[in-house]
Order: sequence, then C-alpha cells, then structure tokens
Amino acid sequence: MAIKKIISKPELHSSENLKIKGWVTNIRGNLNIKFVEINDGSSIVNLQCVLKKDKIDFEKISNLSLGSAIEVSGVFKYTPERQQSGELIVDKIDILSLSDVNEFPIQNKETTVEFLRQIPHIRHRTKLFRAVMRLRSALFFEINSFFENEGFLNFSAPILTSNDGEGAGETFLVDDEKGGFFNKKTTLGVTGQLHAESYALGFGKVYTFAPTFRAEKSNTKKHAAEFWMVEPEVAFFNLQDIIGLGDKMLKFVIKNVLEKNKDEFDFLEKYLGIKIRQRLLEFYKSPVKQIDYKDAIELLLKHKDQFEVQDLYFGADLKTEHERFLAENIFNAPVAVINYPKSLKAFYMHQNDDGKSVAAFDLLVPGIGELIGGSQREVRYEKLLERIQELNMSQEDLQWYLDLRKFGNAGSSGFGLGFERLVMYITGIDNIRDVIPFPRTNKNILM
Amino acid sequence: MAIKKIISKPELHSSENLKIKGWVTNIRGNLNIKFVEINDGSSIVNLQCVLKKDKIDFEKISNLSLGSAIEVSGVFKYTPERQQSGELIVDKIDILSLSDVNEFPIQNKETTVEFLRQIPHIRHRTKLFRAVMRLRSALFFEINSFFENEGFLNFSAPILTSNDGEGAGETFLVDDEKGGFFNKKTTLGVTGQLHAESYALGFGKVYTFAPTFRAEKSNTKKHAAEFWMVEPEVAFFNLQDIIGLGDKMLKFVIKNVLEKNKDEFDFLEKYLGIKIRQRLLEFYKSPVKQIDYKDAIELLLKHKDQFEVQDLYFGADLKTEHERFLAENIFNAPVAVINYPKSLKAFYMHQNDDGKSVAAFDLLVPGIGELIGGSQREVRYEKLLERIQELNMSQEDLQWYLDLRKFGNAGSSGFGLGFERLVMYITGIDNIRDVIPFPRTNKNILM
Repeated sequence: MAIKKIISKPELHSSENLKIKGWVTNIRGNLNIKFVEINDGSSIVNLQCVLKKDKIDFEKISNLSLGSAIEVSGVFKYTPERQQSGELIVDKIDILSLSDVNEFPIQNKETTVEFLRQIPHIRHRTKLFRAVMRLRSALFFEINSFFENEGFLNFSAPILTSNDGEGAGETFLVDDEKGGFFNKKTTLGVTGQLHAESYALGFGKVYTFAPTFRAEKSNTKKHAAEFWMVEPEVAFFNLQDIIGLGDKMLKFVIKNVLEKNKDEFDFLEKYLGIKIRQRLLEFYKSPVKQIDYKDAIELLLKHKDQFEVQDLYFGADLKTEHERFLAENIFNAPVAVINYPKSLKAFYMHQNDDGKSVAAFDLLVPGIGELIGGSQREVRYEKLLERIQELNMSQEDLQWYLDLRKFGNAGSSGFGLGFERLVMYITGIDNIRDVIPFPRTNKNILM
Repeated sequence: MAIKKIISKPELHSSENLKIKGWVTNIRGNLNIKFVEINDGSSIVNLQCVLKKDKIDFEKISNLSLGSAIEVSGVFKYTPERQQSGELIVDKIDILSLSDVNEFPIQNKETTVEFLRQIPHIRHRTKLFRAVMRLRSALFFEINSFFENEGFLNFSAPILTSNDGEGAGETFLVDDEKGGFFNKKTTLGVTGQLHAESYALGFGKVYTFAPTFRAEKSNTKKHAAEFWMVEPEVAFFNLQDIIGLGDKMLKFVIKNVLEKNKDEFDFLEKYLGIKIRQRLLEFYKSPVKQIDYKDAIELLLKHKDQFEVQDLYFGADLKTEHERFLAENIFNAPVAVINYPKSLKAFYMHQNDDGKSVAAFDLLVPGIGELIGGSQREVRYEKLLERIQELNMSQEDLQWYLDLRKFGNAGSSGFGLGFERLVMYITGIDNIRDVIPFPRTNKNILM
C-alpha cells in the first residue's frame, strides 16, 4: 500500500496488516529497538517502522544503509497523540537492494543545493527535491485539468520548425544544409504560438504544453536552455479576455495545489522560511490589477534611485528589478502591465491606434517578475505584413501565417506561461535549476 | 454557448435564446430561407442556423462564404423527430470576418488527404481532421488521468541530452563542438527512459509524456522524425507487472474515449468504412495474450509463404507484416511478444538466464503492429557493464546510469508508447502524417 494513502487517513488503517516497499531515509535506535523511516515516493512524508529485537534478527539488518530498498510487513499502529500519526510495528523485513554506504551521496547531514545540482539523477531523494518535484507534477496535472474543464483542445505544436516564432529568439539549429535531413534550415521552436493560432482558427480554444528551447547565453537564475511552456490560444478573444483567462487559470491551479499538497507546503515554508501560502492566498483572493506600460514607467521613475538600471523611458525594457518592484512594492500583488511599446514585442501583436504600442501584457508577480506574457494578435493582413517587412523578416516563410488572416479570422489572443517560473512561484524556490529535473543551461549539460 | 453543450443535451436548451460564434461550414437555401451550418470547434457536429427573409437582410449576407466567422443569435428549436436534434432560428447575424472564397481551400467537394497534408495549418477545418484531432486531444487527457489516478509522478525528462538512450538510434545533433553552446556533443533525446529510471528510484512510479525525435530516413506510414511518447517507469516492477500496466492503461483510455466521443467514432466509422469500435471493444474485453518470441517465430514459419520477408529465425527482427499477422490472424487480438533475442534490443534490458534473450515485450495490435515496447531493466551492475562494453558504448557517458544500481535499486520496468500509433489505432487512420498536426518526416518540413 502507498504510504500516502496510509498517512493521509491513518485512522482508517489502525491495526491493519500492511506490506510496503520503499527506501530507507533514516535509521536510529539501540540494541533492543530500531526505528527505520522509509519513503516510497508517494508522499514526502516518511513512515516510521519500529523493529524490536524479539521479532527481528538485528544481525540480518546490521548492514542496512540509507537509500536501501526494503520490504516491510507488520501492523499499523495509529498514534494520534504523537507528532507522526502512526507507525508500523514490523513483523518481517527484507532487504531488496542495499545502497552503497560509501557512495550514496544523500546522507543525514546538510547538503547544499549547489552540490545537489551536480547529481540531478539522485537529488530527488532529498526531502527538498521530493517536495519540489511533487508540486511540479501536481501543477502539470492541474494545468491540464483546467484546460480540459474549459473545453480546450490539447494540441501538439511542432518543435522542429522552419519558422522563428519570436522573430528575435536565439534558436538551436538542427539542420541548415541543402541535402540535410530536412533539406531546409530547421531550428528548435521557441514558441508553439504561430501554429496554435492556426488551430484556434477552427477549434476555437486550444493550448500546447511542451518543451521549448532558447540558445540564450544568460546565466541567470531565471533562464534555462530547455524549459516547458503552456500556451493557450483563443479565437474571438481580445486582450482583456486573455488576461482574464490567465488569471482564472492561475487561481484554479493555486487553489487546487494548496488544497491537495499540505505536506509539501508545510515542509517548504519551514525549509525556506517564507510564507508561501499566504502569498498564494493573496493572489487567489485579489482581482488581477492592471497598469498601462507608460504609467508604469512614470511610477518607476519616481523610485529610480532604487534601481540598478535607471534609464527608464517609453521603449525601455523592464528588468526583473523593475517588474518585482511593481508587483512587490507598488501593487503588493500580481499586476498585468499592458500596451507595451511595439519595439519591445514580437511582430504578431495587435497594433494599437496610438501607432506605437501593442495590445500585449506581461503578468508580473511578487518574487519572480514576469510569469505570463501574452497578447491580442494582429488580425489585419496589411498591418501584419507591414510589421514583417519593417523587421526584415522573411515574408515567404511566414506567408502561411499571414494567410490565416484570409480565412475567417476574427482575431485571437493567447499567452505563454513558463512552466518552471510557475513552479518557482508556487514552491518559493528561486533558481530555475532546482525546479526542473535535469536543467540545461549554457555550457552545462549533465547526463 | 459552445455547440457541444447544446447538441449533447438539446432538450435542455429547447426555446432558449442563444448567441454563438463560429465558422460557416455549409450554406444552402433559396431566396426566402437559408440554412447556414456553423461549427465552433467544440464538437465535430455542426449547428444548423435557419435564416428567414422576413427577419434577416439577405443582402447583408450575400457574400457569406465557407470558412467565414459569424455571430448568430436566436431561439433554439428542439427537433427530436429529425436527424439533427435541433436548429437555431436566427434573429440576428453578424459577419465577423469573411473567408476569401477564391483562396479558402476547404470547399464542399471531396479533397484528398494527400492534398490536405500540404496545408496542415488549414486541414483541421475538415470534418475528418476535426474528428482525428479531437480524439488525439481526448487521448492526451485520458492518458494523463490514468497516471494521475494511479499515483504516478509526471516527470520532465530532458530532450537535449549527451546520452543516446537506445544506443543505436539515429539522433539529431544540436551541438558537437568544444566551444559550442553546451561545449559537449548534444543530441535530441530518443527516449526519456534512462532519466526516468533515476526518478523511479525514489519516486516509485513516474512517467514522461513528451516529444521525441528520430533522424530515421524511413519514409513509411508509421515513421515520423518528431512524435510524442508516453514512458512510465515503475520501481519494483518485473516484466509481467509492466505488461499488466500497459494493458490496464490501454483499457482505461479505450473505455473512456469510447464513452465520451460518440460523434467522432460515428463519423470515422462511416468515413473509413471500418468497425473501429468493435475492434476496440474486443481489446477492452480480452485479457492480454502473451507468446514467447521463439514460439512466435515457430508459428510464423508455418505461414511463411504469406510474407515478403520469409527469413525467420531466432534473432530475426519481426517486420510489421509479421507483427500484424500475429495480432490479426493468429491471435485475432492484441498480443505481447516476450523474451526477444538480446541482439535485437537495447542494452539496458534484463538478461534472461538462457544467456540469449532479454525480458522485453512488444505489444502488437491488429491494424498497427507494435504499439508498446517495454522491458524489465537490468539491475545487476556487472551484467549491465558487460553489455555496455560488448556494444562498444561509452562507459564514461553512462556511468551515472550504471551508478543507479548502487543506491537501493531493486529493479524497475517500463515501456514506451508511441502516442501517434495509439491515435492511429484508436481512430483507424493508417498514416502517421494524418494524426499529428504538423508532421515532420525526412525531407519534409512545412511551416
């Protein structure tokens, strides 16, 4: 039986005979009694197994080490009066596979996250990474649930593509020769959006949830060369509608992970010393706020002494310090900055009547900065073509995308959510390398 | 309101005032009455809108064309006596965006799938591709539901990798130079399995669901350069356990898509002229059958006259014709072929005591051949190392994987399900190019 099942309703399993396979996470005791904690991966909470000398041959388990796989059977004793709500009084223990005590790197002493980053194939056997990866998985399920409930079509955008969706991204080249596998310049896609737009035109509501690649050399805590993105695209939606969808999605997943993952949040709050749940609850309770980019610049200028980058003007790219200042100090809440200068944004965004801004938004959250970026798409063929030409992009490559404007396109809007940024926001972990199992960054690929 | 909601329970919407946005799929009628069918992407079923001359200015809609986006409002009339169970008596129609009647390629005449493959950004606006992509999406949700219900951790294996998981795969090279982005030979992964094994060791039950890449030059109906794979990996599972999991998963998704997607199956059965549901129900009702590879060879030899490739012996690779013959003619059901010669399979599979076979299985299904391939993993360090050396693979690259055997590894098993093959099996579509939105094959990358 899964440990999660037992410890989530221990009263139901009182006096029950149980058999469990798991890995040893702690051993203590003396010559007469031993306490062996095990974890089977179903929960971050361990089950304490009590081994008494009269029933168990201590000789047989003298070499039991942390990380070893064992099978235990015995009677579950419900102990509501104690901190752990029950323990297994073991009748029988089998060592299924020992862990090499000299080589197993997870011992009962403090290890740094930097050290653990060098062993991504093992670090999830610490409580910290068990909690993070459990929450990551929970978020994966909740995001899919949200879109399924809302009637979205899940759609696979291609990863290998001959288009460069953002028009500016640094992409990984997979094929660039005549005579190569594809006989055409082929890169790893930086977004599924262009393709998603084609599917929204006909299916109405679609989304992708897939890996994305950027050959960005930034070695920051927020950047990785490979990460997952959630990209919904909805026909007939304008900027306000899509901001509303992002807000609704985040509130749905926040509510559900808070309800279903108490143990993980208990642990992370204690470990990190931050009130993650309070921050998430505040998000959940507040309507999303909005501010025009140009007003945000004005506000930030009033506090420019606080920033490293003080050169702020219409057209200036907001840095993480500015984004966080807006979310943390000015609004003390998530805030959508809208109507960015068109020079800062991709070619496909709806051009506003002012001639200089586009109907884009970035949703900024405390602790992270940008979590979601999205826009209403430019549906006017001539306007879009003009922008493609202005930016010296290839009309030929994008003709199929331009053509979507000819076939009953009454507009669509969408956004991209960097999944790892969401995991960071939800877990309170501040480095992207620690929220993805095997992180890939510049000059750094292990395994 | 979504058309799916209306047509799934039309009696609930009788006489209701509705407003719907969608795309025109059919127009007929005369000077006094017009019937305009619309689809909003929520269902493959269209809604018939009735426009009468006394209420609607026919002049205003004289240029209405197939594919145009419109908004209609009116009263829903429930008509249980007729083939379509209701229609909208339109009060008001707005043309939101016209479709160019000369350029829109989906007209009310037959088009071939070959023609439609040239326009992957538009072909989903036919009923055929709407049905296929709706089922693909439904399968995506059901697979995730299955693993969530079973307590699996969803896990992101890296795509960019310095390992070649299968040891033989033709991989896409992303970086091969010192001084390149990763400063190391880097390819697009062919499997997430090695990494998934590391996560199963600790989390117990994990799975990945992600794109996979093969630079295979085979131009068959079954091969694509980019496709999605589902790969569960379960600690403590042996070969029989993992076959059981595959069978359970397939039965779960089959049952649910059959229940929830009646309209799509109605259409596909009629369109393709095959009894898809009967085949799926038979799968659902039968326990999975098994045959040892060596016995399968014996059986096939008895019918060798029927095959193109007749050279069958212990060590011969089963071709699709053999696989289908086993599933269709011999068992008339899905069958797991087990214990393949080790020369045919990847290095990481459990070596059987006979010294020549491995604890692998391929699940063969009628109409497709191999749907799932999996194995029990070799947990013995020395045996695994021996095989890596025999195959001249790099021990250095795989040391981390070998090391997993040192840290309480009591064995694990897993399988890979080619998602597109499942979509083919479920929809009855016989070409992989038609079950993935933007197919990528050798020399062929559109958009």
